[in-house]
Amino acid sequence: VRVGILGAGQLAQMLTEAGTRLGMSHVLLAPEHDACAASCGVFVHGDYDDPHALSRFSEHADVATFEFENVPTHAVEWLEDRIPVRPSAEVLRIAQDRLREKETFRRLGIPVPRFEAINTLLELQHHAEAVGLPAVLKTRTLGYDGKGQAIVRDTRAESLQRAWRAIGGTPAILEELVPFDRELSVIGTQSPDGEQVFYSLNENVHREGILRLTMARATDPQREIAEEYARRLLVEFGYVGTLALELFEVEGGLLANEMAPRVHNSGHWTIEGAETSQFENHMRAVCGLPLGGTLQHRAAAMVNLIGTLPAVHDVLAIPDAHLHVYGKAERPGRKVGHITLIDHANNSVEFNTRVARALELAGEDAAAYALTLRESQRGA
Amino acid sequence: VRVGILGAGQLAQMLTEAGTRLGMSHVLLAPEHDACAASCGVFVHGDYDDPHALSRFSEHADVATFEFENVPTHAVEWLEDRIPVRPSAEVLRIAQDRLREKETFRRLGIPVPRFEAINTLLELQHHAEAVGLPAVLKTRTLGYDGKGQAIVRDTRAESLQRAWRAIGGTPAILEELVPFDRELSVIGTQSPDGEQVFYSLNENVHREGILRLTMARATDPQREIAEEYARRLLVEFGYVGTLALELFEVEGGLLANEMAPRVHNSGHWTIEGAETSQFENHMRAVCGLPLGGTLQHRAAAMVNLIGTLPAVHDVLAIPDAHLHVYGKAERPGRKVGHITLIDHANNSVEFNTRVARALELAGEDAAAYALTLRESQRGA
Repeated sequence: VRVGILGAGQLAQMLTEAGTRLGMSHVLLAPEHDACAASCGVFVHGDYDDPHALSRFSEHADVATFEFENVPTHAVEWLEDRIPVRPSAEVLRIAQDRLREKETFRRLGIPVPRFEAINTLLELQHHAEAVGLPAVLKTRTLGYDGKGQAIVRDTRAESLQRAWRAIGGTPAILEELVPFDRELSVIGTQSPDGEQVFYSLNENVHREGILRLTMARATDPQREIAEEYARRLLVEFGYVGTLALELFEVEGGLLANEMAPRVHNSGHWTIEGAETSQFENHMRAVCGLPLGGTLQHRAAAMVNLIGTLPAVHDVLAIPDAHLHVYGKAERPGRKVGHITLIDHANNSVEFNTRVARALELAGEDAAAYALTLRESQRGA
Repeated sequence: VRVGILGAGQLAQMLTEAGTRLGMSHVLLAPEHDACAASCGVFVHGDYDDPHALSRFSEHADVATFEFENVPTHAVEWLEDRIPVRPSAEVLRIAQDRLREKETFRRLGIPVPRFEAINTLLELQHHAEAVGLPAVLKTRTLGYDGKGQAIVRDTRAESLQRAWRAIGGTPAILEELVPFDRELSVIGTQSPDGEQVFYSLNENVHREGILRLTMARATDPQREIAEEYARRLLVEFGYVGTLALELFEVEGGLLANEMAPRVHNSGHWTIEGAETSQFENHMRAVCGLPLGGTLQHRAAAMVNLIGTLPAVHDVLAIPDAHLHVYGKAERPGRKVGHITLIDHANNSVEFNTRVARALELAGEDAAAYALTLRESQRGA
């Protein structure tokens, strides 16, 4: 089977690694010249909606998927007229629009933070009190210029105007800033015939908007309900492939933040830590193959390497450390690799020390993660 | 680090997969046009001792290794004058010569079947009784024309002449045919500073000279002594990389058959079944990096796919099955893939049923493997 992937970053790299083992071949389309997965198959260089590039791409693929949710939907629709695209353009359209996404969650009974649609400065003034402050004003679709979000702290006309200008005055949603206790994500895969599998719940820590640490929590008390929410989404969309749902834990309850219709950074630990990785299950689903088990036998953690790589020797000197280097040029804020740690010795104290060491090598202040590490629990 | 690999088959493929994750880049040299690992790095097409090809290869590599022990030693020596080669040409010379190999085993106190060096038909006549019949006459070095071995069943002049002619009348060894109870292999890795790791003992079943099934035996009673023999070889050679030692179990004792100075087919299960695979540890050793743990948590088995591939859907319908397709054209007797099975449910009865199913998909008569499967034991 020839699988086409829109995007050619590290997610595509890990998808093709899984696909190659299963005998699939790959074609990748991306606008970057130096995309790190360019050598993982036939590489078509071009914008996602370049008709010539899309046409070449579709000629090399029996089925298509994407590693990245900001592909223009009209490009995916064009593809859908020619080959199956999994998941579908419909899912992509919803995931790209924060308002439709939140409305979908609400319709499916998945709790969300308070929010209001905002189309004008007047509406912003009108709804700010009801949503509750502080709140965050977000463009409905991706802000391509980094102006996608602004915090609203008070209802003074000046503050509201500043926020409205900051996001470019485009259709937006205003959402309460949730004082969460934990950030969680649940990852599941559905096949074309409705078979579903879910991975252990992920507890995630972000800094500066970038995921830094994931702890896989096999026995987390929130796992069941998070899975139930993800299940509703998979069923609703007749979803095919791997989906991630990001959640906030607030006073013992869960609120949905957003979904990613693709494999997810918080699921990288599944390569070594689960029976079958999120990448392999995505490729299995996309190709209509039976899904693999998702059991997690040992505690697992993932530390992202952002901007620069530590010395390989130092990483491998940590027992249980698995290093993944993406082969991308180092650049501030860029994900250039990750470290997965598996608690092979079933010793959570030692394991936490090792995760802390990995965080240090990643340039993080490990002390800032003490709470997350202390609460670590056995995986199996 | 740029790692050069002589050979570009499935072993090179799995080596580069491990190396790429660690941030290594690769150059491969092989005489085949359609080598399955050709796309896993810079590919230099040429004979192993083509000076032009070797020169290009060495320019792209900081260190070199090989996936295959029949590389001409003079080519490896030429390389050694330019870049480190791990393991060394010295090891290769011994592994390529059945007489020196057996003599090395004996010198290190590693028991071997009875054998004698045979340089003439007269010597064959002279030694046949002492070695004991039936015996196998093997050329000292690889028989390139498939005339490498002949069975000697009796001492009639005619029989001995026929065997001598069959191997081309070249220097040989005559070795007793051992009535073994089991075929075993032990795989270990040594780093340049002498760090050593060993994997669970492998119980192997061959048919028509081709490995069909490996069961990884974490708690096998022979594991300790097999490891001790492998350790002596690693120390003797100042070995760097992964080494496999094949053994016969005969009446409760072990006899060494041969060594492979490389990653080994019986260690493929380590990709999913051990903390760190034999491939990653080989690459770590070759690059002077700390070695990774080798613990096996669950029972593991590997079934080779020879000649043709079963339907991917059928393989993945087996719970716990991990499929590896090498991307080689199907051809009788050719290794085109393998299936690894991990007993995630810790249920040895079910597990054996699944291994039997994988054997069936591989075209084997599963009943013929009943004894090996019945003796299966837990991995952890």
